[in-house]
Amino acid sequence: MAPAEPEHPADRLLRRIDAVGAPACVGLDPVVERLPAALRPAAGDAAAAAAIEAFSIGVIEAVRGAVAAVKVQAACFERHGADGAAALARVLAAARAAGDLEVILDYKRGDIGISADHYAASARGPMAAGWTTVSAYLGADSLLPFLGAGHGAFALVRTSNPSGDAVQSLRLADGRSVAEAVADLVAACGAERCGTSGFSALGAVVGATKPADAAALRGRMPRQMFLVPGYGAQGGGIDDVLPCFRPDGRGALVTASRSVIYAFDPADRQWVDAVRRAADALRHELAAGLGVRS
Amino acid sequence: MAPAEPEHPADRLLRRIDAVGAPACVGLDPVVERLPAALRPAAGDAAAAAAIEAFSIGVIEAVRGAVAAVKVQAACFERHGADGAAALARVLAAARAAGDLEVILDYKRGDIGISADHYAASARGPMAAGWTTVSAYLGADSLLPFLGAGHGAFALVRTSNPSGDAVQSLRLADGRSVAEAVADLVAACGAERCGTSGFSALGAVVGATKPADAAALRGRMPRQMFLVPGYGAQGGGIDDVLPCFRPDGRGALVTASRSVIYAFDPADRQWVDAVRRAADALRHELAAGLGVRS
Repeated sequence: MAPAEPEHPADRLLRRIDAVGAPACVGLDPVVERLPAALRPAAGDAAAAAAIEAFSIGVIEAVRGAVAAVKVQAACFERHGADGAAALARVLAAARAAGDLEVILDYKRGDIGISADHYAASARGPMAAGWTTVSAYLGADSLLPFLGAGHGAFALVRTSNPSGDAVQSLRLADGRSVAEAVADLVAACGAERCGTSGFSALGAVVGATKPADAAALRGRMPRQMFLVPGYGAQGGGIDDVLPCFRPDGRGALVTASRSVIYAFDPADRQWVDAVRRAADALRHELAAGLGVRS
Repeated sequence: MAPAEPEHPADRLLRRIDAVGAPACVGLDPVVERLPAALRPAAGDAAAAAAIEAFSIGVIEAVRGAVAAVKVQAACFERHGADGAAALARVLAAARAAGDLEVILDYKRGDIGISADHYAASARGPMAAGWTTVSAYLGADSLLPFLGAGHGAFALVRTSNPSGDAVQSLRLADGRSVAEAVADLVAACGAERCGTSGFSALGAVVGATKPADAAALRGRMPRQMFLVPGYGAQGGGIDDVLPCFRPDGRGALVTASRSVIYAFDPADRQWVDAVRRAADALRHELAAGLGVRS
């Protein structure tokens, strides 16, 4: 008997959003300087990696049931070298093992040919995640290897930082911005990879801090799930993220990082409870903003 | 006494180019399927990582004296998870320890804020390299953290793959291509970070397969060292790379990967000698093409 086809990643993500009642995602960007006092490590990469691993696994347990997904920032682990890579693999495994969370490896890889294949293989094997984030500057070659067999990717279209305007806001001769042209590329690359939900395995990163752009990009990418970072600590609020959604309230996943994972006093031994409350507040805020009962 | 200022990365790179007499770089893109028979691993990421590490260190020994730099492709190691990350750290350390090679970590990271800081910290600590490759799509925020204290970076401007045209060749309203606009951004970001050679710590990746574009980009980025992949196996020849250089024969570093590191019959136990001959041939070919005595 042939093995069952894996569930389409967009269908799976939407199922998890429905289960918690809000398109909420927590970003895991752990740094040793902000850990609870009880977890602060001794010096060295091995101790630091162990500490951010323990913290991350605590956060994953805390946010289960409140959010549909966790987005793990690879850079926080990579800075600690091979110890960090081993910790990242275990954190991703713990998030997968939870069973009720979509797992996004935020590593923003962008390469071509066999190198793109290698990165994609990593995210299906040792660093397995349901979704990755990828750069689109190198075209379809840097996107397509990350799709298929239950895996999806969010391509960088419009980032939340001010200096991104220097490239993404440039105006083309045909009237589009560079970000809009990248959006059209993403829409075309993802067109044939839609699930029963109508959404594609190729999504788009669209920052919460650019609401005017988000509305135009939503129109150009009707089948893309938007991964929307920049909510909370980076300044984006509920009104800023609404243009990322379709009129039916679907189509985006909103990520809050620091405002949730550091929602505690460092001396508080009950920090897990504080993180859980912050994740639940995120869920309610998004559900209320979208007019969904939660 | 204050510690000595580290040598500027562009000055250091040019010194190494002068030492070998050609702007030659070998790309280390090791995959288990193409290793010498004597190094083929058993199954599993740990064995694979050990095999590509042993091969890479053999290549580094083989090419010393023939080339100015080695460019290590992070993806080849990352596909093997934490074992691969540990192998990558040791390969980078071996290349640094050689003492006569510039070390480029080709990891094409592109992120912002503290995440960019984390990636940069990795390339100064556990994965230390003199140069990294970085994405420019997110603007200056994704470039500047990778510069300083003896470290340089090559920003992706014009890549060697066909599908890169879908973004990089788009025409702006002001007449520039997107790649040319990114080149102007790179030139501006790197302007104040030049060494005594006049070249900047911020360089540019310009593929060998786009000679017509290279000439225009050379004009827009007079102070950028070009890292030129795509020579040899990807189809670029000596005439294709000449437009990447200034009239004085400086300003670019040409990378050949597969045509050098796999220049052997897999059954050949003397594969190191074959790699050394191929690296030396690359050096002579580039020196002859540039009219330099080698």
